[in-house]
Amino acid sequence: MPNAEPLVEVWRGPFCESLHRGHAVIWDAGGDIVAAWGDSDAVILPRSSCKMIQALPLIESGAAAAFGLSDAQLALACASHQGAHVHTEMVEAWLGDLGLPEDAFRCGPQMPNDKGARYGLIRAFEEPGQKHNNCSGKHSGFLTLSKHLKAGPEYVDLDHPVQIAVKAAFEETTGETSPGYGIDGCSAPNFACTVTGLARAMAGFAAATGDGDTRDRAQHRLTQAMAAYPHLVAGEGRACTNLMRAMEGRASVKTGAEAVFIAILPEQKLGIAVKIEDGTTRGAEAVITQLLVGAGVLEADHPVAHQYRYGPIRNRREIETGQYRLAAGLADWTL
Amino acid sequence: MPNAEPLVEVWRGPFCESLHRGHAVIWDAGGDIVAAWGDSDAVILPRSSCKMIQALPLIESGAAAAFGLSDAQLALACASHQGAHVHTEMVEAWLGDLGLPEDAFRCGPQMPNDKGARYGLIRAFEEPGQKHNNCSGKHSGFLTLSKHLKAGPEYVDLDHPVQIAVKAAFEETTGETSPGYGIDGCSAPNFACTVTGLARAMAGFAAATGDGDTRDRAQHRLTQAMAAYPHLVAGEGRACTNLMRAMEGRASVKTGAEAVFIAILPEQKLGIAVKIEDGTTRGAEAVITQLLVGAGVLEADHPVAHQYRYGPIRNRREIETGQYRLAAGLADWTL
Repeated sequence: MPNAEPLVEVWRGPFCESLHRGHAVIWDAGGDIVAAWGDSDAVILPRSSCKMIQALPLIESGAAAAFGLSDAQLALACASHQGAHVHTEMVEAWLGDLGLPEDAFRCGPQMPNDKGARYGLIRAFEEPGQKHNNCSGKHSGFLTLSKHLKAGPEYVDLDHPVQIAVKAAFEETTGETSPGYGIDGCSAPNFACTVTGLARAMAGFAAATGDGDTRDRAQHRLTQAMAAYPHLVAGEGRACTNLMRAMEGRASVKTGAEAVFIAILPEQKLGIAVKIEDGTTRGAEAVITQLLVGAGVLEADHPVAHQYRYGPIRNRREIETGQYRLAAGLADWTL
Repeated sequence: MPNAEPLVEVWRGPFCESLHRGHAVIWDAGGDIVAAWGDSDAVILPRSSCKMIQALPLIESGAAAAFGLSDAQLALACASHQGAHVHTEMVEAWLGDLGLPEDAFRCGPQMPNDKGARYGLIRAFEEPGQKHNNCSGKHSGFLTLSKHLKAGPEYVDLDHPVQIAVKAAFEETTGETSPGYGIDGCSAPNFACTVTGLARAMAGFAAATGDGDTRDRAQHRLTQAMAAYPHLVAGEGRACTNLMRAMEGRASVKTGAEAVFIAILPEQKLGIAVKIEDGTTRGAEAVITQLLVGAGVLEADHPVAHQYRYGPIRNRREIETGQYRLAAGLADWTL
């Protein structure tokens, strides 16, 4: 087992009730580890945290230009969205532009996390569709690329041109030969890498200026699109959205299932990757928030920084029952 | 930090994606540890796993007899229920018998986990009440005891006669002086103990015959009530209900928040306590299920045993993406 390090304690009254161990790497685009916790060589599945890598072929192939995709659409292609109306209306319009029905998707249906959309479906006695799937923006991007490449409909197959292009982009940006893949919640292959590899990829995005080669311009555009449309990358009340709004464009962040979190810091040309060993989101949110504060891109006294680093944890009568506490070696870190 | 032991791996494709560490103790009513994993002296908050201890004063005081409580009501007093109609109708009737309104509760409102009840509220544009709180059965018991004792309305206060009686029962059954408490999700004090103390308490329940003293008879009645009404202790689709149904009365089990799980095995006079360090329910469910199989009270090839020990994990298109794998020292254990 990789040597995961205690990072986030969950306290209730005078007791540490639960503990999250994990791995984190901060990588400098110059080619060095700036700081690391746990095992920087731990092999992980980035899950949705690498959607901006999966979106690179969409731009680099010329598909995004050919279909006139907006920056908002590119942000949605990098999203794990809430299935709010703002998200599903964009997805519907995108499908319309492609001339494709909703059943062209291969992501499967998902009840929206957005309360308004969810309650609307329940009150209308309707089942959610594939457009409500949190990955439907990414899959809209896949369908766009597939159409541009004149490829077949099974775009999540490992040997489909879309996934071959995604794998190439993944290995090039992580700087690693992927040791394999798992099937994601949305049925796309999700390639494995080390925590360092994921941080290295994000540092590449951070260093992109928009003035370089095709890769550089694609990375720069995606990073900017995410920062410009925080509500499209996740949704109201979600950590990605709250953190990007609080940082006002100074960093782009993205969560992934099973407690992965990445950050792209263009000003510092740094990439950050976090994986909590046990897969608990609250742990990953606390760690990435602390690292953003430590790196100087999120104000320590911002309410969002307080919320994810400290809590408090409240019960069903809104009584404060506990809080998060960061491990010393994490709480003390500054760039 | 206590030395939590790797217990449950979560695999996706060829990768161990997440890992749950924890503590478990099997205690013999004769006074010995039968088996242990992790740190048997780790201090934990049992949360809802100790509701049958919190219900002891309800019986021992004579309140249950005075109010003519049924075994079904006692099962509900030990429940973390789904807020299904079957649960809330019993709670409403119980409040009616006490002549108390719903706002006598101090547990706070909670949206039901039961899909039918939840959708019903949403479609009626109604907010959930305190009767929907998963702990409303326990709180009905608290109110019954409080009324019997002619005590005041603030029955979750630490110095209220109800909580004084609960603390005494907790320390007597765990065999430990509690080092303190946290405030639970339902606002009641939740007293701390070691994993061993919690297992010891459950062994006491397991050894009760119903032919002994007041404590013995109360413990026996609660254990039997839980086993007789699995759907009242949790609800459809939940681990407690599924496991107790599968064991057909051979053991009573109860989950608690932050990944605690207990089992009471009357035939073997054993008590089991599990705490997953990171607080993730799937880990606690896998471990308790394996220990029930190892102890011989749950058939290894029962679908419920397969579900919680192995999975499989499926995605939004019902494609099998992974499974759970138990650590060797746990998977191999038999009584």
